[in-house]
Amino acid sequence: MNIALAQLNYIIGDIEGNTEKIIGEINRAKSQQVDLVVFSELAVCGYPPKDLIDYPSFIERCELALVEICQATENIGVLLGGPAWSGLERGKKLFNSAYFYKDKKLLRRVDKTLLPSYDIFDEYRYFQPNEVFECIDFMGEKIAVTICEDLWNIDTEKYYKVTPMDELIKQNPTVMINLSGSPYSYNHVEKRRNRMKRNAKSYSLPLFYVNQVGGNTDILFDGGSMFINADGDIVEECGFYKEDFKVIQWASDKPYPDNHEDYYDYDIGLIHDALVMGVRDYFGKIGFKKAVLGSSGGIDSAVVHAMAAEALGAENVKAITMPSKYSSTGSEDDAKKLAENLGSPFSNISIRKAYDAFEDTLADEFAGVAPNVTEENLQARSRGVILMAYSNKFGHIVLNTSNKSESAVGYSTLYGDMCGGLSVIGDLYKEQVYELARFINRYGEVIPYEIVNKEPSAELRPDQKDSDSLPPYPILDKILFHYIEGKKGWKEIVALKEEGLDETLVRKIVKMVDRNEYKRFQASPTLRISHKAFGTGRRMPIVAKYNH
Amino acid sequence: MNIALAQLNYIIGDIEGNTEKIIGEINRAKSQQVDLVVFSELAVCGYPPKDLIDYPSFIERCELALVEICQATENIGVLLGGPAWSGLERGKKLFNSAYFYKDKKLLRRVDKTLLPSYDIFDEYRYFQPNEVFECIDFMGEKIAVTICEDLWNIDTEKYYKVTPMDELIKQNPTVMINLSGSPYSYNHVEKRRNRMKRNAKSYSLPLFYVNQVGGNTDILFDGGSMFINADGDIVEECGFYKEDFKVIQWASDKPYPDNHEDYYDYDIGLIHDALVMGVRDYFGKIGFKKAVLGSSGGIDSAVVHAMAAEALGAENVKAITMPSKYSSTGSEDDAKKLAENLGSPFSNISIRKAYDAFEDTLADEFAGVAPNVTEENLQARSRGVILMAYSNKFGHIVLNTSNKSESAVGYSTLYGDMCGGLSVIGDLYKEQVYELARFINRYGEVIPYEIVNKEPSAELRPDQKDSDSLPPYPILDKILFHYIEGKKGWKEIVALKEEGLDETLVRKIVKMVDRNEYKRFQASPTLRISHKAFGTGRRMPIVAKYNH
Repeated sequence: MNIALAQLNYIIGDIEGNTEKIIGEINRAKSQQVDLVVFSELAVCGYPPKDLIDYPSFIERCELALVEICQATENIGVLLGGPAWSGLERGKKLFNSAYFYKDKKLLRRVDKTLLPSYDIFDEYRYFQPNEVFECIDFMGEKIAVTICEDLWNIDTEKYYKVTPMDELIKQNPTVMINLSGSPYSYNHVEKRRNRMKRNAKSYSLPLFYVNQVGGNTDILFDGGSMFINADGDIVEECGFYKEDFKVIQWASDKPYPDNHEDYYDYDIGLIHDALVMGVRDYFGKIGFKKAVLGSSGGIDSAVVHAMAAEALGAENVKAITMPSKYSSTGSEDDAKKLAENLGSPFSNISIRKAYDAFEDTLADEFAGVAPNVTEENLQARSRGVILMAYSNKFGHIVLNTSNKSESAVGYSTLYGDMCGGLSVIGDLYKEQVYELARFINRYGEVIPYEIVNKEPSAELRPDQKDSDSLPPYPILDKILFHYIEGKKGWKEIVALKEEGLDETLVRKIVKMVDRNEYKRFQASPTLRISHKAFGTGRRMPIVAKYNH
Repeated sequence: MNIALAQLNYIIGDIEGNTEKIIGEINRAKSQQVDLVVFSELAVCGYPPKDLIDYPSFIERCELALVEICQATENIGVLLGGPAWSGLERGKKLFNSAYFYKDKKLLRRVDKTLLPSYDIFDEYRYFQPNEVFECIDFMGEKIAVTICEDLWNIDTEKYYKVTPMDELIKQNPTVMINLSGSPYSYNHVEKRRNRMKRNAKSYSLPLFYVNQVGGNTDILFDGGSMFINADGDIVEECGFYKEDFKVIQWASDKPYPDNHEDYYDYDIGLIHDALVMGVRDYFGKIGFKKAVLGSSGGIDSAVVHAMAAEALGAENVKAITMPSKYSSTGSEDDAKKLAENLGSPFSNISIRKAYDAFEDTLADEFAGVAPNVTEENLQARSRGVILMAYSNKFGHIVLNTSNKSESAVGYSTLYGDMCGGLSVIGDLYKEQVYELARFINRYGEVIPYEIVNKEPSAELRPDQKDSDSLPPYPILDKILFHYIEGKKGWKEIVALKEEGLDETLVRKIVKMVDRNEYKRFQASPTLRISHKAFGTGRRMPIVAKYNH
């Protein structure tokens, strides 16, 4: 039989638009003699719909869309994800389901068993777990249908008590199909491939795996849908960060040799593509075209500028450099050169007048009190006001240019350089930002070498360098990684012999991370590329007293 | 036997501090011949600990604290909440547990069965649900111990498949004890009392119920611990919004007549007390003493000022009025009079210079483009910069003064009037703000009557009134309530005959709410007093397309 993997980019909540897209692919599949076309998890409403799903009217609209999709299934099998009323007297009101249609009829509904509720996931908030396991007979094959997480409970340490395939295998299925909504984070592509290969191998069954693609605010779905043979080899794989449609001629008795080559073996390239897609989808899905950013002549804004130019077109990215009396002319020139290299509109708007006005306005109130961080923040906030004014005036979205290292330790100004509609590199440690800059320059200078090579500075005081108040970034990033991604307390970090990190320093950094929870609470959404990004996936109390 | 209800205010993560507090109460109980002292859910670490609990070192510190508490239980029974390693090969790593100690030994550990994961709750993110039910024998009684949500699954429509007391009752317990972490929202006090009374009545068992008290960032715990007799009458009730310790002489064969009178029958009074506690605890638990706020002469900032003065002492609340050319002198005078009434320090800092500097700075960039909302936002953001500068200079926390009506429709400026460390009335609709103002003035003028009686205006344009761009607040608040708390789509709201709301208006307002999700994402933490506050409890996608 011919099975199609339909890897699409959905807009959350745009049920009518998603339905139109799905029916379009069903018709495409028909024209290619496909017997069964498979879509991803919760395709009809897009994943993750979050609390939209709490609105009964939202579920009703999904139901209407499913009726419409059902009507389009004459002579073809269609398997797609959508919510379903559970109808239970005891338990939650909804299931996260897969609908199997054929010839305008619902052949079977399969409900998701394992509901992830860690990191960015929240599915137990909405759904009741399935407890019934039954394969689906279709064209002489017996199909074991599962939904995303259902195939992930195969480690020695199991997160869930049930492993759905262990139940389904008892009915002797001939093939597995999994509908996923599996987001990217670095290493996750390999992790996901390996996990799915192990499923195929351990159950000795081929696996059709369909993921969605696209950026949904902060969460980036990479795609990479695949067909894996019963030996656990990837036979076909869809593209990353783009929609794809692959038809596979499949029969249960035919061998499928491994002829697949990895698209990506360079991880920073995947991160780059993820972020570019993230920016493009953030703007595209809400109908915005233009971005504005503060271009300081430093590495962070340069990397954001270059990727935004790739995502939106350089002419749609306005760069504004906003010098103060502490800015070096070098910085202004570098920012300008970057805009020229990329071909972006550029302005130089000094914050001196605004800064002087605030100093003057506050002179009485602050009389006799020594300058402190207040004056540095005044500069950052004056810049924030200018960027937001530009945004308001011309309808550009402000891109935030903070990185994860500085968000972590609070080396940033709330409502100043923390402003923006979207943080592009907020989940990249400083060292990764440099790596990304080198990747962007892989074919030659895009980001001026002066920017890549200069020592990091916020330029908010005379001759200020980041290293005045922070340890060198390679050390800082290491501590942060162990604390944030590694969930180690300071004692455990200090105990890591291979790192040789100083106790006083580790404790200081860990405390800085804890203390700045209140700032990050008000940060913009941040494109997620790690497995522990600030934001949705990391929920710390603000008012608390702890010392990991 | 003598049973003590220990209703305490914990600091999240402050395991050592909480332990000291708990041991103090154990000693107090001993001195009062108490046989069993009961603390609330997760008392050892404070509730909710959120992702702190993902750190193994955090659990280890809880374990050490429990050992210490155990050592303090000579000649007394102690029942308190804390996390426990599940030790399961299949399932999550932690239980949400109640530890029952006596004579320096662990008599029994009881794990929580029902893990709420709706609204602000996230317990399935961390914990494995219990599946084993056993009563505890203690001093000739058989105690059915449950934890919070375990007693809530008693409606006709059940949210969970299991009802723990239906299992425990089979062992013929003589008394129920429930350890809770149950936050306040309006009507929740009555709802909780009724729920617990129904439990007592339907199982014909007395119930000892212990809640925590205190504000934890946005979530406000009201206390109200109680002893209910087997007829379902409240016999004893602890105070609201304060720590309390009540000893009850109890024997299973003694009747306990209902001699309890409700402390509160006036709901706005409870809201008032909740918010005052919320401000006090936000500051107190992180060691801050002083607040600063923008005092516009309007009702919102006046109500926040009055409550902050009550929470922190008027002398610790700095009010700054920041007139622009559009501000009426009336407003400046009213703000000043309010500060005088309360006895707070007050400054008048004009934003004219700052505003002019921005206009001047942006003149070239904005040449030939008509004024729009940009210029209004420039005023709001200039004020934000001044407040934050004051905060940075003197270590005051900025209090945000937005209300729920304006947050809902985005009638607020990001980084402008939306700035602040804590939003005090952000979960109150405008009509509720007025109600609160009248409550504050119940014994005479605190908030000048001029402020209470004037028509609401943002004063960002000449002669601007809120009613220029918004419907009257009684109508706006009604639509918002149906949409946000009621989870009704626009069609359902229009269909409400008794409301008679205009379709065009309802659709416009609903769309405004949806569109401003991006702003609320960056709002400050907001004290929660409704059952559907913006923030943790309402998780909507930003990049989405929907039309409820």
